[in-house]
Amino acid sequence: MDDDRRFAITLACPDTTGIVARIAGFLADAGGWIVEAGYHSDPAENWFFTRQVVRADSLPFGVDELRDRFAEVAAGFGPEATWRVTDTGVDKHAVLLVTREPHCLHDLLGRISAGELPVTLDAVIGNHDDLGDLVRAHGVPFHHVPFPGRADPRKEQAKVVAFEKVRQIVDDHAPDAIVLARFMQILPAHLCEEWAGRAINIHHSFLPSFAGARPYHQAHARGVKLIGATCHYATADLDAGPIIEQDVIRVDHGDTVPDMVRRGRDIERLVLARGLRWHLEDRVLVHGNKTVVFR
Amino acid sequence: MDDDRRFAITLACPDTTGIVARIAGFLADAGGWIVEAGYHSDPAENWFFTRQVVRADSLPFGVDELRDRFAEVAAGFGPEATWRVTDTGVDKHAVLLVTREPHCLHDLLGRISAGELPVTLDAVIGNHDDLGDLVRAHGVPFHHVPFPGRADPRKEQAKVVAFEKVRQIVDDHAPDAIVLARFMQILPAHLCEEWAGRAINIHHSFLPSFAGARPYHQAHARGVKLIGATCHYATADLDAGPIIEQDVIRVDHGDTVPDMVRRGRDIERLVLARGLRWHLEDRVLVHGNKTVVFR
Amino acid sequence: MDDDRRFAITLACPDTTGIVARIAGFLADAGGWIVEAGYHSDPAENWFFTRQVVRADSLPFGVDELRDRFAEVAAGFGPEATWRVTDTGVDKHAVLLVTREPHCLHDLLGRISAGELPVTLDAVIGNHDDLGDLVRAHGVPFHHVPFPGRADPRKEQAKVVAFEKVRQIVDDHAPDAIVLARFMQILPAHLCEEWAGRAINIHHSFLPSFAGARPYHQAHARGVKLIGATCHYATADLDAGPIIEQDVIRVDHGDTVPDMVRRGRDIERLVLARGLRWHLEDRVLVHGNKTVVFR
Amino acid sequence: MDDDRRFAITLACPDTTGIVARIAGFLADAGGWIVEAGYHSDPAENWFFTRQVVRADSLPFGVDELRDRFAEVAAGFGPEATWRVTDTGVDKHAVLLVTREPHCLHDLLGRISAGELPVTLDAVIGNHDDLGDLVRAHGVPFHHVPFPGRADPRKEQAKVVAFEKVRQIVDDHAPDAIVLARFMQILPAHLCEEWAGRAINIHHSFLPSFAGARPYHQAHARGVKLIGATCHYATADLDAGPIIEQDVIRVDHGDTVPDMVRRGRDIERLVLARGLRWHLEDRVLVHGNKTVVFR
Repeated sequence: MDDDRRFAITLACPDTTGIVARIAGFLADAGGWIVEAGYHSDPAENWFFTRQVVRADSLPFGVDELRDRFAEVAAGFGPEATWRVTDTGVDKHAVLLVTREPHCLHDLLGRISAGELPVTLDAVIGNHDDLGDLVRAHGVPFHHVPFPGRADPRKEQAKVVAFEKVRQIVDDHAPDAIVLARFMQILPAHLCEEWAGRAINIHHSFLPSFAGARPYHQAHARGVKLIGATCHYATADLDAGPIIEQDVIRVDHGDTVPDMVRRGRDIERLVLARGLRWHLEDRVLVHGNKTVVFR
Repeated sequence: MDDDRRFAITLACPDTTGIVARIAGFLADAGGWIVEAGYHSDPAENWFFTRQVVRADSLPFGVDELRDRFAEVAAGFGPEATWRVTDTGVDKHAVLLVTREPHCLHDLLGRISAGELPVTLDAVIGNHDDLGDLVRAHGVPFHHVPFPGRADPRKEQAKVVAFEKVRQIVDDHAPDAIVLARFMQILPAHLCEEWAGRAINIHHSFLPSFAGARPYHQAHARGVKLIGATCHYATADLDAGPIIEQDVIRVDHGDTVPDMVRRGRDIERLVLARGLRWHLEDRVLVHGNKTVVFR
Repeated sequence: MDDDRRFAITLACPDTTGIVARIAGFLADAGGWIVEAGYHSDPAENWFFTRQVVRADSLPFGVDELRDRFAEVAAGFGPEATWRVTDTGVDKHAVLLVTREPHCLHDLLGRISAGELPVTLDAVIGNHDDLGDLVRAHGVPFHHVPFPGRADPRKEQAKVVAFEKVRQIVDDHAPDAIVLARFMQILPAHLCEEWAGRAINIHHSFLPSFAGARPYHQAHARGVKLIGATCHYATADLDAGPIIEQDVIRVDHGDTVPDMVRRGRDIERLVLARGLRWHLEDRVLVHGNKTVVFR
Repeated sequence: MDDDRRFAITLACPDTTGIVARIAGFLADAGGWIVEAGYHSDPAENWFFTRQVVRADSLPFGVDELRDRFAEVAAGFGPEATWRVTDTGVDKHAVLLVTREPHCLHDLLGRISAGELPVTLDAVIGNHDDLGDLVRAHGVPFHHVPFPGRADPRKEQAKVVAFEKVRQIVDDHAPDAIVLARFMQILPAHLCEEWAGRAINIHHSFLPSFAGARPYHQAHARGVKLIGATCHYATADLDAGPIIEQDVIRVDHGDTVPDMVRRGRDIERLVLARGLRWHLEDRVLVHGNKTVVFR
């Protein structure tokens, strides 16, 4: 018996009295040993969110039956309720999209190979092949999908073809997370939609400041005293998706744009790694354009 | 009816399955609308902690009956269970102990007069009278209780007498918090015991580093790159009580001891204000020499 | 002779070789004992910045002669060079503009009365009189200059009159700093210009995010994970002036707008106090829309 | 001609007037274009520190002649003066010592291979061979030098032999930095002395708190609210050498020891990478048991 195996239940639904009691009662009746429990009640939206983690070995049934039984409980919370039951005994999978910057990729490869992030990396896709060797050295398949250059007269069409290849590779793995680890192409709206809640981007600014291109140049021009990074779910509205995590680092007048680029990498790495971890541990619930993160 | 009135229940007890269910079921049966809920299960200590906040107007009874009824629930969690039921409709009270440094006192007076901290300040006691005018300008009684100087031959005896006066003034108000806001006298063990869980100290270092006297001098001598402050419950073991909150600020080789003293004040103010707020909102549960803080 | 008295020289000019040598040579020839020296060379702008602090008692002449002599040195750095020589033996003066929020005002009053900020507060001007008692309790003159309400049909004209009164009170004191300590009126362009480099604003967001009205509401709506504050020189371009200092604090999904408002105050207080200190200590040099801050 | 090549001069000497003038004059006379200049005057120690960086192409001579000429200047600052002249055109070299924890090693390998740290990695020495594959995958020689187990009866003697092997490998490369990247053996005093100012350790606590073994266990037991890491020069006095850099991260009651270990890694990585960078860029001057870091 695996002591460390856990089942995680997440739920979001319109708020009302008695939700906690019904879930807790359901788990208690089954002998469930709750090891983590987070609750959030949003008064402005009148919405309720919870995440509960039980020891798998405390329940007399497996994850499938838990899912079936919890479906009945959740049915009582109305048609708008959304919920998931996941099992730490079942591996999560991820696919990474990269361009040329290695720092986020290298950092994630290190965490994954050290067992620090609970995920199997199925593939890395690059629109350049610069990072292929690094990926293959970690025993992970690398797919080079070239994208058209700016001057390409048939750019739009070629981009559609390239993204279709990307989509096929990604969907072959049906991953739990599609990570844009400094992928310098804008995801088309239909992929944002298909991958909603699974496509995770790292933007190299403290959003909503400096959305779009060359955020460190923008930050330098504005003379800000802190630079940051933002991990968010990708949506059709560029750099405007639900924010999972952000952090900042102090800069001063002595920092040039290349200094900011270099120093910002430390924040990008950390913010992406934290956001991805929380996503993989089912700690992030999306509601509208915002997230509830049960850390 | 006061929409903002809340009842807060806190409980700590040996961990077992079904505690959440029993509390949640009890509240749901009474129609209780939970607006905040925190749970923590400590696997090393096998101890369970919770804090739940319900809207007062959602229950068909008042705080006294809630207390009586919850006592029955809590009885089921064994003789080691400790719990409290508090009512935001009942004012909390505090007494402050100060010496000569005004910054923490001034900060707390500002927060209290702006309604930012949920507490009534009954009295301030100073072992010097330097801060009397500041206190009286805020309409708060100031008591000057002189303490013997270092060279006083009858120092020990005089100190006993002085602390007895302090004790009387404090106990006259039976305050929820006795705040040592840079009070430069060591509280005797019997007062630490009598006021256990209510006496809150701010120490001007990141404990356990630099306990005892002149922590900024110690920090400067050691050449640390961050200085800090620690808000903790006072215990007979000097500077070793359960920590409520800590924070730090960056310093560098250019900072002299007076610079550290000045810059450290910003952290002392913040850390004390946060720790006191959490204490007053019943967010802090003490277990052994550690705290659980439901923020 | 006052050991603590210092003369501070600041200079900004087109960069070239030998500037440091000329200034250092000038000071060395006069026997000047440099206790602080900051240099910054901006490669993108090809501009040089320095701040040097000498012990007054190390020079054989006073501040006026230092100014005269340094003028000759500075003349060698071209017509675009800007410079100042200041004397810590000469008090700096400030006027504060406030509305109803007391936290920044209260914090600055505490720092000034504790001798923590090197400034004399000549007057506080409020467009409401809510904060009059607090100001007068610190022995500082308070001027209530009412501003027209939103519905006032002659609003524009009345505002011009009100700002003219504000201008007169401020200019009577010829202050080194005009601090907008949560002053909720937009300074007209002619005052921004007249007070350029002296009018210091605190904006309750991490600019350039959430400029304009109700930044905490904007931050809450966007779901950011950090909120901040920005201290900047006021310019005609609202919330876009040169940034002196910024800082942030972590928030999460549990923080309502009022929580953000309350928690943000801690950052506003600190950021304004730091920015004002640096301004008063002649540590801030403005170049274009950016600042060099010699901390 | 290489526009990016720089010569860095660092100097520490008893403070007196005119030092800046003499150095600046010397550089100006040679046409030196100063691109970075840091000065620090320590009033308590009456010691002066400076670091100046000039463009190599602005001087009419090379680094050797600069060194010769500066030696004459420095001679004027007394026999206690210490100084260095370094050339960014000459590669710096490092050797790493590791045990089993990969995170600091992996992070440094990534930074070095991305050109983010200005150093060539000559060798990695492990007292276990767990990390050999990772090192060799980056094309760096890995030396496995087994150390005796705790139960080994001839432990002391075997350790002497092992450290002698380590010393030989290190000294073969005469590296500018010997990095103890989570090397879990205590460096003997004679190596600390031989490598003084070059051996850089990362300790997984915010020193001086939790020196010695198992700092995260100590931090957990004490119930601190922040954990940290410290990068310092190794000295014979364990965990007490001059501190180069420190940082912290927030933890709470929910963090177990393994959580702290995992989260602490993020701080260890950053603090070591920053400290090593500053060392390699000749930004760190040691005086007594403290450092001056010109960032």
